[in-house]
Amino acid sequence: MESSNSSFQLLQELISIQGVASDESRIKAFIKEYVLKHSSQWKSKPRIIDGLGFQDALILVFGNPRTTVYAHIDTIGYSVGYDNELIRVGGPKNIDGTILVGSDSQGDVEGELMIFENEYNQQRIQLSHERTIDRGTLLSFKPNFKETKEYIQSPYMDNRLGVFVALQLAETLENGAIVFSTYEEHGGNSVGACAKYLMNTYDVFQALICDITWVTHGVVHKGGVAVSMRDSMVPRRKYLNKIISIAKDSGIKFQLEVESAGGSDGSVLQKSDLPIDWCFIGAPEDNVHTPQEKVYKKDIESMIELYRVLMNQL
Amino acid sequence: MESSNSSFQLLQELISIQGVASDESRIKAFIKEYVLKHSSQWKSKPRIIDGLGFQDALILVFGNPRTTVYAHIDTIGYSVGYDNELIRVGGPKNIDGTILVGSDSQGDVEGELMIFENEYNQQRIQLSHERTIDRGTLLSFKPNFKETKEYIQSPYMDNRLGVFVALQLAETLENGAIVFSTYEEHGGNSVGACAKYLMNTYDVFQALICDITWVTHGVVHKGGVAVSMRDSMVPRRKYLNKIISIAKDSGIKFQLEVESAGGSDGSVLQKSDLPIDWCFIGAPEDNVHTPQEKVYKKDIESMIELYRVLMNQL
Amino acid sequence: MESSNSSFQLLQELISIQGVASDESRIKAFIKEYVLKHSSQWKSKPRIIDGLGFQDALILVFGNPRTTVYAHIDTIGYSVGYDNELIRVGGPKNIDGTILVGSDSQGDVEGELMIFENEYNQQRIQLSHERTIDRGTLLSFKPNFKETKEYIQSPYMDNRLGVFVALQLAETLENGAIVFSTYEEHGGNSVGACAKYLMNTYDVFQALICDITWVTHGVVHKGGVAVSMRDSMVPRRKYLNKIISIAKDSGIKFQLEVESAGGSDGSVLQKSDLPIDWCFIGAPEDNVHTPQEKVYKKDIESMIELYRVLMNQL
Repeated sequence: MESSNSSFQLLQELISIQGVASDESRIKAFIKEYVLKHSSQWKSKPRIIDGLGFQDALILVFGNPRTTVYAHIDTIGYSVGYDNELIRVGGPKNIDGTILVGSDSQGDVEGELMIFENEYNQQRIQLSHERTIDRGTLLSFKPNFKETKEYIQSPYMDNRLGVFVALQLAETLENGAIVFSTYEEHGGNSVGACAKYLMNTYDVFQALICDITWVTHGVVHKGGVAVSMRDSMVPRRKYLNKIISIAKDSGIKFQLEVESAGGSDGSVLQKSDLPIDWCFIGAPEDNVHTPQEKVYKKDIESMIELYRVLMNQL
Repeated sequence: MESSNSSFQLLQELISIQGVASDESRIKAFIKEYVLKHSSQWKSKPRIIDGLGFQDALILVFGNPRTTVYAHIDTIGYSVGYDNELIRVGGPKNIDGTILVGSDSQGDVEGELMIFENEYNQQRIQLSHERTIDRGTLLSFKPNFKETKEYIQSPYMDNRLGVFVALQLAETLENGAIVFSTYEEHGGNSVGACAKYLMNTYDVFQALICDITWVTHGVVHKGGVAVSMRDSMVPRRKYLNKIISIAKDSGIKFQLEVESAGGSDGSVLQKSDLPIDWCFIGAPEDNVHTPQEKVYKKDIESMIELYRVLMNQL
Repeated sequence: MESSNSSFQLLQELISIQGVASDESRIKAFIKEYVLKHSSQWKSKPRIIDGLGFQDALILVFGNPRTTVYAHIDTIGYSVGYDNELIRVGGPKNIDGTILVGSDSQGDVEGELMIFENEYNQQRIQLSHERTIDRGTLLSFKPNFKETKEYIQSPYMDNRLGVFVALQLAETLENGAIVFSTYEEHGGNSVGACAKYLMNTYDVFQALICDITWVTHGVVHKGGVAVSMRDSMVPRRKYLNKIISIAKDSGIKFQLEVESAGGSDGSVLQKSDLPIDWCFIGAPEDNVHTPQEKVYKKDIESMIELYRVLMNQL
């Protein structure tokens, strides 16, 4: 069994595949292929659920699941509007000079994001390009993966890193489900359909949201994985207490997050009519929603470790 | 078989019937009666689904449906508050002097909308009327249908025109479903219940949103029906590509829309836990959400034609 | 059979139990215990539905239900963030000097809310306390129940009073359901799961939202219970008309509310894909979302009476 845990090559590959929210078919195909290729070496071989009724989402079911891990496979980006205007998909931070890539009917597209401001301080975001790009073309940050001894910095750590962690977890998971969800960054979807399927088919009422959070004055690099006690939504206290108790007993380094803003696949579950408990657990990153999302490597390790323990004990 | 396509009398009738969001029972009854009267002459006779569990929505099922057309039957308007204050239902544009109609326990109501502004630029909207109208009375723009050689101008082209198009489509539809939905302009509802019913009963996972869009600098009168690549929500790319490909092959005049704002029954599907693909397709109108909504007649023709082709090939 | 109607001791007890949204397990346990203790003396003994699949909500089913009463058991409050910062749960009005209570790993917590404003008029809310309270601790207004001849004033009349009314109603209810729902003040939830259960199991398509509304210039103390014709959401007109007609015939004192803002468990139903009619009916209160919520006692009486009539006739 390869120790992919100690290497971030898979993460770099995941980041190289475009998957702006609404257009997740390629990253989904990559993940499915990866699972088909590697799962024979995993501790338990998962059932794969996808296709009609699941859009571009993918579910892995291991043994008798009690808890589902949600890792969203979409990213933020831009739609090309009329005359190369740019419209955000999700909430990318508009930074002048950011290089965006994609492709349309004329071939590959690469250009710089430019910000124009009018006399009323209203911003218009434009792609600098020699030709008019097809309407509706989806663009994303140009991949730019950097690994140092301590950190990884790259666009789309949110949430290719969550996907990476879920795939590490898959290697040893015996009972549990993993949902690779879509549309998290814009509009929310597929989470409800997958959660309903898992609830109706396997009686799964517990969820963990495997995603990347923000470095703030309360949650810091080198503090271990963050267990979020709230963001804009508040998880159910009984479930939260159980998770924190397991985390404390595990000896794994973690920090408690209490924020007033932000949302995740957990918010989609909270606002649905599904009685499913959820909690967000993920490493913190700096430079959120920019091409320089930066995560401390040992925080990733504690994230993988805590998921292993929780999926076993919850 | 009458060629109602070349005549807009039915459209004018549809517009004459009040149906402010939450109060769609009369327009629903009119549509049901129309279907019962005319469907024997249609190519395929639909099953009619309505009543308990569907509120004031109405579903027509033709043959073996793969795709559902959603045309909302509600309109924007106003609730009468305390002392003839007006509170918006949906997003009507408040224009001083607009004539509003309705009825309460004392009989018919007709009066002018008046805008009062205080020293802090806060607006209060008031109905000018000799008596105090019953609390909660629903008012709508006074019908004022105008047809020229090229254009139709009227209140509530959004979305009586979508309903009209769906009824034209019904004449030749062999396999497909049509949902006449409610509450689109305020709060959203009935779409989810109908979509779930059609998914569970007929395995329908595809939706087309038959509604009217906005003339902007990218979408224009005389450009043909608009296929929307996004508004505030972004439809799934795989489904969108299939639709655009069919539209291109059809030779029917259409234009691609890419907007950053606005929503539709498609947004309700997107935010639900139903794994249903959707795309908004409709003629563009000027003077949105005013009593002078204006649509180019040949754009309506291309809308009807494109729906016929899509319902056949999707 | 005790006439708890004439005494507000139960209301005071309900208010003394903490239940900030997301943390409703104790108030739920209290209500369940109350039902188990008293229901043998009720006109009809309800089935109790709770546990897995219902989170901290509780359902009572009497006879053959046609209508469900929703009374939310959660309250507004605060989460303790980093270094005793306070983050709102729901929409409490931040008032300098308000006394908040709760408990953490070190024991009971009681402290004053302090508002700090920086040079940009941005507010930071802080708990004044000698030690650093555990992250994520939930705090609520200190109980302070005051009863005069005419009024009751207390924190959390919204919605312990709705719960109280539902428990009075339970004493004589023969056919109907009562849902003690959670998370109404923050995020919304459990209502959908309970409504779906009651719809699928008992064909219940009608809902009444048993909650407290606001005194405004149109809805006043001593005007009787308020039947809400709209808030931010608009209930279906057909259902509303039926309710108003029954209320008029009953002779019970009531007033019609027409507001542009606010929401309730009814909004959750409206935005769900459940085809369930809803209407908000409740006594009005002053000093909304403060520790001094004040309700006129005879308005409570008319609220209980109207619920009895409606649950019988709807």
